[in-house]
Amino acid sequence: MKKTGKKTKVKAIKSNLKQRAKNMKLTSPEYTQYRNPLTSRYASQAMIQHFSELHRALLWRDLWIYLAEEEKKLGVPIKPKQIQAMKEAREEIDFERVREIEKSLKHDVMSHVKAFGEVAPEAEPILHLGATSAYVTDNADVLIQREAAELILSKLSFCIAELGKRIEKWKALKVTGFTHFQPAQPVTMGKRLCLWVQDLIWDFEELQNVLNRVRPLGCKGATGTQASFMILFQSDFKKVQKLDEAICSRMGFKQPVAVSGQTLSRKVDAWFLNALSNLASSFSKLSYDLRLLQHLGELREPFGKKQVGSSAMAYKRNPILAERITSLSRFLMNSAHNSSWTHATQWLERSLDDSANRRIVLAESFLAADAICELGLRIFSGLDLDKTKIEDDLQKHAELFETEERMMRGTLAGGSRQALHEGIRQATMSGKLKKKKGSSQSIFCGAAKEQAENFLRMELKPFLGKQSNRLKKKSQIFGADAI
Amino acid sequence: MKKTGKKTKVKAIKSNLKQRAKNMKLTSPEYTQYRNPLTSRYASQAMIQHFSELHRALLWRDLWIYLAEEEKKLGVPIKPKQIQAMKEAREEIDFERVREIEKSLKHDVMSHVKAFGEVAPEAEPILHLGATSAYVTDNADVLIQREAAELILSKLSFCIAELGKRIEKWKALKVTGFTHFQPAQPVTMGKRLCLWVQDLIWDFEELQNVLNRVRPLGCKGATGTQASFMILFQSDFKKVQKLDEAICSRMGFKQPVAVSGQTLSRKVDAWFLNALSNLASSFSKLSYDLRLLQHLGELREPFGKKQVGSSAMAYKRNPILAERITSLSRFLMNSAHNSSWTHATQWLERSLDDSANRRIVLAESFLAADAICELGLRIFSGLDLDKTKIEDDLQKHAELFETEERMMRGTLAGGSRQALHEGIRQATMSGKLKKKKGSSQSIFCGAAKEQAENFLRMELKPFLGKQSNRLKKKSQIFGADAI
Amino acid sequence: MKKTGKKTKVKAIKSNLKQRAKNMKLTSPEYTQYRNPLTSRYASQAMIQHFSELHRALLWRDLWIYLAEEEKKLGVPIKPKQIQAMKEAREEIDFERVREIEKSLKHDVMSHVKAFGEVAPEAEPILHLGATSAYVTDNADVLIQREAAELILSKLSFCIAELGKRIEKWKALKVTGFTHFQPAQPVTMGKRLCLWVQDLIWDFEELQNVLNRVRPLGCKGATGTQASFMILFQSDFKKVQKLDEAICSRMGFKQPVAVSGQTLSRKVDAWFLNALSNLASSFSKLSYDLRLLQHLGELREPFGKKQVGSSAMAYKRNPILAERITSLSRFLMNSAHNSSWTHATQWLERSLDDSANRRIVLAESFLAADAICELGLRIFSGLDLDKTKIEDDLQKHAELFETEERMMRGTLAGGSRQALHEGIRQATMSGKLKKKKGSSQSIFCGAAKEQAENFLRMELKPFLGKQSNRLKKKSQIFGADAI
Amino acid sequence: MKKTGKKTKVKAIKSNLKQRAKNMKLTSPEYTQYRNPLTSRYASQAMIQHFSELHRALLWRDLWIYLAEEEKKLGVPIKPKQIQAMKEAREEIDFERVREIEKSLKHDVMSHVKAFGEVAPEAEPILHLGATSAYVTDNADVLIQREAAELILSKLSFCIAELGKRIEKWKALKVTGFTHFQPAQPVTMGKRLCLWVQDLIWDFEELQNVLNRVRPLGCKGATGTQASFMILFQSDFKKVQKLDEAICSRMGFKQPVAVSGQTLSRKVDAWFLNALSNLASSFSKLSYDLRLLQHLGELREPFGKKQVGSSAMAYKRNPILAERITSLSRFLMNSAHNSSWTHATQWLERSLDDSANRRIVLAESFLAADAICELGLRIFSGLDLDKTKIEDDLQKHAELFETEERMMRGTLAGGSRQALHEGIRQATMSGKLKKKKGSSQSIFCGAAKEQAENFLRMELKPFLGKQSNRLKKKSQIFGADAI
Repeated sequence: MKKTGKKTKVKAIKSNLKQRAKNMKLTSPEYTQYRNPLTSRYASQAMIQHFSELHRALLWRDLWIYLAEEEKKLGVPIKPKQIQAMKEAREEIDFERVREIEKSLKHDVMSHVKAFGEVAPEAEPILHLGATSAYVTDNADVLIQREAAELILSKLSFCIAELGKRIEKWKALKVTGFTHFQPAQPVTMGKRLCLWVQDLIWDFEELQNVLNRVRPLGCKGATGTQASFMILFQSDFKKVQKLDEAICSRMGFKQPVAVSGQTLSRKVDAWFLNALSNLASSFSKLSYDLRLLQHLGELREPFGKKQVGSSAMAYKRNPILAERITSLSRFLMNSAHNSSWTHATQWLERSLDDSANRRIVLAESFLAADAICELGLRIFSGLDLDKTKIEDDLQKHAELFETEERMMRGTLAGGSRQALHEGIRQATMSGKLKKKKGSSQSIFCGAAKEQAENFLRMELKPFLGKQSNRLKKKSQIFGADAI
Repeated sequence: MKKTGKKTKVKAIKSNLKQRAKNMKLTSPEYTQYRNPLTSRYASQAMIQHFSELHRALLWRDLWIYLAEEEKKLGVPIKPKQIQAMKEAREEIDFERVREIEKSLKHDVMSHVKAFGEVAPEAEPILHLGATSAYVTDNADVLIQREAAELILSKLSFCIAELGKRIEKWKALKVTGFTHFQPAQPVTMGKRLCLWVQDLIWDFEELQNVLNRVRPLGCKGATGTQASFMILFQSDFKKVQKLDEAICSRMGFKQPVAVSGQTLSRKVDAWFLNALSNLASSFSKLSYDLRLLQHLGELREPFGKKQVGSSAMAYKRNPILAERITSLSRFLMNSAHNSSWTHATQWLERSLDDSANRRIVLAESFLAADAICELGLRIFSGLDLDKTKIEDDLQKHAELFETEERMMRGTLAGGSRQALHEGIRQATMSGKLKKKKGSSQSIFCGAAKEQAENFLRMELKPFLGKQSNRLKKKSQIFGADAI
Repeated sequence: MKKTGKKTKVKAIKSNLKQRAKNMKLTSPEYTQYRNPLTSRYASQAMIQHFSELHRALLWRDLWIYLAEEEKKLGVPIKPKQIQAMKEAREEIDFERVREIEKSLKHDVMSHVKAFGEVAPEAEPILHLGATSAYVTDNADVLIQREAAELILSKLSFCIAELGKRIEKWKALKVTGFTHFQPAQPVTMGKRLCLWVQDLIWDFEELQNVLNRVRPLGCKGATGTQASFMILFQSDFKKVQKLDEAICSRMGFKQPVAVSGQTLSRKVDAWFLNALSNLASSFSKLSYDLRLLQHLGELREPFGKKQVGSSAMAYKRNPILAERITSLSRFLMNSAHNSSWTHATQWLERSLDDSANRRIVLAESFLAADAICELGLRIFSGLDLDKTKIEDDLQKHAELFETEERMMRGTLAGGSRQALHEGIRQATMSGKLKKKKGSSQSIFCGAAKEQAENFLRMELKPFLGKQSNRLKKKSQIFGADAI
Repeated sequence: MKKTGKKTKVKAIKSNLKQRAKNMKLTSPEYTQYRNPLTSRYASQAMIQHFSELHRALLWRDLWIYLAEEEKKLGVPIKPKQIQAMKEAREEIDFERVREIEKSLKHDVMSHVKAFGEVAPEAEPILHLGATSAYVTDNADVLIQREAAELILSKLSFCIAELGKRIEKWKALKVTGFTHFQPAQPVTMGKRLCLWVQDLIWDFEELQNVLNRVRPLGCKGATGTQASFMILFQSDFKKVQKLDEAICSRMGFKQPVAVSGQTLSRKVDAWFLNALSNLASSFSKLSYDLRLLQHLGELREPFGKKQVGSSAMAYKRNPILAERITSLSRFLMNSAHNSSWTHATQWLERSLDDSANRRIVLAESFLAADAICELGLRIFSGLDLDKTKIEDDLQKHAELFETEERMMRGTLAGGSRQALHEGIRQATMSGKLKKKKGSSQSIFCGAAKEQAENFLRMELKPFLGKQSNRLKKKSQIFGADAI
């Protein structure tokens, strides 16, 4: 197998596209450069902006202002006008200039320091005083991750609340249960959805728990010894601690991490990303359920009026949103693995093989989680249930469903459970137990309804009660400009 | 590149080895079959036995006894002699017989039911009454994971306590700090070890948290609706719940899971294995530190008197234990991924594509964690520190270390931090700032010692205080017959 | 949620089980220690023995004999009786003695050298002469991987051949095609199976290609410079090369690797394990297809006469073999990742963080691949097709199937493809296009049959032609004592 | 640990940033949205554009033109002016219009069909005739992957050639060899680099082999049966095959894939991405070597004149490019895993859970590979070797290095290799064998130089000979606008 025309290909990549774009008057890089589809298609604007350079740069400037202000309070001779200058220039960020500087310095934080100094020349001498780059990068990253996690928690609350309504509605609606994707014993649709919600509540708790545990880096200096700050404060450790705590307080945290190398332990990333990965795992599981149920025709995701199912098969109505959840969950789970490997291979007080990797995976993991939650809510609020199909499926398996009851009653009446089991097994094998249609009236779903009620009362209600604040601003929370 | 003699190879695999083993009178499968090296080399007997078929089979029988007893208490007509028979036959497990049965039934639980019935014939009719296989498999698995996790927590406590002693001892011992594995600012050895301990305490908390959250399956029946139990108890949901709770209480848990499909959510495995993976990640990180420090000659793992470093280079003294930690951590991290993928791809009330995978990865992940902790304690208790080498390294970098102080003092004296930074940078580039030897006396480690003391007081002491029970039975806890 | 009775648990792990096993007269470690289920349940004896310590130890001794013989031929003063002694003692391997030695030496190869020297004392002075441990370990590992890969290739050939028969038989058998697991356009069952076979042939080629590329380490010495051999041969590089090549020739390879550190590049492991992982990926895909088709009832895996489908639902007939393939494929794919990470994190001339990891994952990856192929053949040779169910499903979708033809013919007749497509779409949405039953006679499967014939002729036949040797000894090749 | 100020955070994400950006007159999304750093920082413009929507859209239009032209040639009544219309409108792509359509259709290919029809209304009725979406998506993806792979191969050739020069130069330059990162036996720097090149050549071969094996989808229709084309050509299979082949020929391939579902087997993605992952693994390994050698000071990556090593420690000269390789390699290896999992979980004729995942990982894997190669060449062409440091390190270990020679000569003189080994071992342990400085003159590197020469002659030269075309257009090939 050989391909022809190979020789001109590489050149083609290099030159033609630029020219074409020019001819086509395509000036925005949006279509002429690779764009991550989470940005262009799947995630919400809120999350996309949250991981922008602008947001990060503003946080850095805030952190430099906090540092100067708190150092000043504790006695470092910083002048009010220096702080004033920083505050006034805070939003004068010339990204092109930063990039130009970075080309020679090859250091992103120092380029921002220099660019900030240029627009706030009074403050230049004391900018970043005592700090190492990780002061701005790591503290800002924790702030970014915390806010992003809060957004995910809010979205997740809505997903759970929405499913809760369906559980209430369908708690007694009998449906065929499946193990091995073979008809098993009947369940109710509401009881089945409890399984999804239980997983999601657990995921919520896990991410919430990460937020409860996480502490920012604070100001620890080049190798975590706070040496530069000890110098600034004449070896007064109390003052150094106060600075550390004051900065954290400004960031909205109670306490900085007790010890660090140059950076926060990279384990903290793994906490966040593992929690997101576990969320993805639950959504993946439920997306498979949805796809199988849409196959059965029992439950369907929403379908737009003008939506085209297939470019070839015009009659198609595919579970493309559920499939997209499977797809993005897989992406998120693999993406999250990065954070553990990064932690596992760090060296001593820090090595920089974390940096480029984190720039991508922290953002893209949260963007994927955001997209998944957006898809989740779209599906859950538009679920379309087909009672006729459900009824039809139940009737087909009615005879099978009865056998467990027969075995129980037989044993209660003094028979051997084991012999009864074997009897049913042989009847099936020999074809005597046919899958003949039966009435769905008499189908027994055990305590499925009671369990669902119990679950709503004991698990879901208390959960939603605690999230009442989150559940008030849906239109602000959601908003993927999604396709 | 082609190989010769290929044709006879496959046959060789098939026939020769058996014959040879016979000739060599090797009857034990230990050497003639593949054996997982965690079993044959690295893990402790306690953990190896814990994941044996015998342990699992005994737990299954216990669970069947619990079920019959509790059903009886709640009114199911089970006779005292039936329970008596089960109890008496509890330890009569003929594994060969089980296997023989399984060959025709192709169902492991049913084979054990049948084999148990054969040795306890009075109980046969009511054995496994109302239960599905997951009743024994999933409940036993949670018991196994809980005990295994407890063992890991105990081992981890000792590792942390051992490191705590070193922190105390070396809290003021100055050493070269490294970022990018280039000399950075100095730290103290004790302060560095705080980083390891902080990670390990966080891992401990995470695994502890899993134990706090986990609830067993209880008795939920074939598709989780408790239908069989509702039949046994004439649809009295209260009684069904009581049975569920009573069984859990017998297992030492307060409460069963609220809802389930046929099995417990596979997310629970992911909780355990992710926590172990995070532990592996911390040990991996510290094993890299150890290997780099042994390269420097500053810190060394223990080395046996007769130990051979290399079959070719007799003078070698390699950090093989630390390298083994890296190696097994990598294994554990990859192994743990299985649990998330398994959860993510389950279908509806359950699919069986979890089973074979779980049989391997649950056990091997805990065995690897066990081996890692054993290695950890061996290393931590035998750490060999070379003060001469440490001193020598410090002196080499003394001039570099001073520069941060110079920059701070210069700024305090009214200079521009940025200009001072650039001055030092240029001096280095031009070779004016040489790495000339300096005195280690004047080397300033910032608050490294104070931080270590603070860490011991505020973090480690309270932690160890809570683990006092665990810290009493070291000889019982450890015991890899390791090489 | 707290558990009770915790305090006695850890002790229980430690002490009770041993006592119980004693009481139960269970002396074999088979049931009292963890055993990998690939060994106890799923893989073939051939593969299990292949990864035994005995097999490895015999290969090591062979390699020591090769070394001495070839050194002798090239002039090193080794005496015939020394070689004679080695050959005579070759199968005198006392594993207990080796282990005893290793306890003090902490070096596996040196322990085997010493134990070999004890049973062949004349040879002791020249044993392992010029070699480093990797000489035996890495060369033996390549031999083991090569033979194991050959076994997999043979098993895979049978799987492919078996599927080929089904393709021939079912090439014209119309079945419902599914995209998104929604009825799409019809295919034939034989054509569908071509997709499986195409993947498997590609996997075969890839593994074959690894075998074509792989070269053994040969004798390269402690850091790969062949220094020890240059000394033995007075810096005669030609002789050193001859030795290297002679050893490889004895191993059945044409050529050693050109350069190495202490060990072969760990990339070679990744070649083997990635190829196995790709095989697992294909089997995973087809196992999902099988499970979905068994749900539909169109195709079923074999089911034993006494087989029990479920311990609760006696009528169940589950695709447990296909599910087991999914399960083990997932395991294998995760296991294989280890090999890439190990390679990616090696240091300079070698670091030992490969060792413990490779001991597990090389063996277990091949064992899993073996088990998967065994399962594959079991399923493929017992496939049970239900024509009535297939026919029934076809008829249900007949009207949908016609629409593509309508659209094509409409366009040929001058209509707009786009308008016709929209017409069909609207008809479906409005319910005008009902899924009414149609005749399966007129259902058009395009060129499915012709494609299958073409595939058999152009791809499968030439493939099987080349594997004729492999396809002769089925009973020797297969043999998992499987459940 | 609780954070304060939480309540306003989520709103902040949503609203403030947009307003700020407006105030700051930041109109480009470049800084106000997340941008993948591979696009904004690390990869070359050629590769970034290659994965743009524009490039893809142009390929789709080409494929529609090919289809119409080849159908026409084979007799489908398509008019010349219809084809003319398509060609003329080829570059009139209004992406905003496409997006608008997609919002209602929710189908990307159909939106492009409609938009193309709008600018080429004559062609509208026959656009996409007989095709399913995968006709454009999958064929374009193979074209994109092929060209991207060619670009990687070219970059890799330059990397290898550059390293070849260093091997030639340093083939006899003695350096300390390291196993376990402990001094082992000496090697030469050139010989060490051969290990890197050997890995990279193998990776080149593997990616080349993928290009040799890959075949495009061609035109197979909705479920791979070519039914629509059979209708267009009155069931003339020969004509259908001719169309399939003609399209492939237009794409520069000899042959389409023999069979397919709706899409090409997703295994093909895994071929490409596994090959890239293996490349990443090699670069990761060599980046670790580089970082360790820069620690030793023996070898250093290039460092810009104005480059800032650290924002806190102005004297720092860190291996940030090598660390970035480690970082991006880790990313690429994890990203590549997606392709295998996607393949492993596909269902029947296709499921759409591939789509969103592939949109991200195909592009980002190639972008990461591109960035890694760019970094590779930057480092390799600027390698800075410090002979003084190398010499100094050698001298420190001279006494250790001699021991292997002593052992060999002792054995040749009739001694026991084993006894000599133990003698050296004990001398080391007791401190008799001190690491005293020795002359580097007498240090013996075995055949390191001869091996390097051999490698250059037998492996590298033939390799570069075949790549002569690739090695001509460096400035066209490279060009990351990198920092």
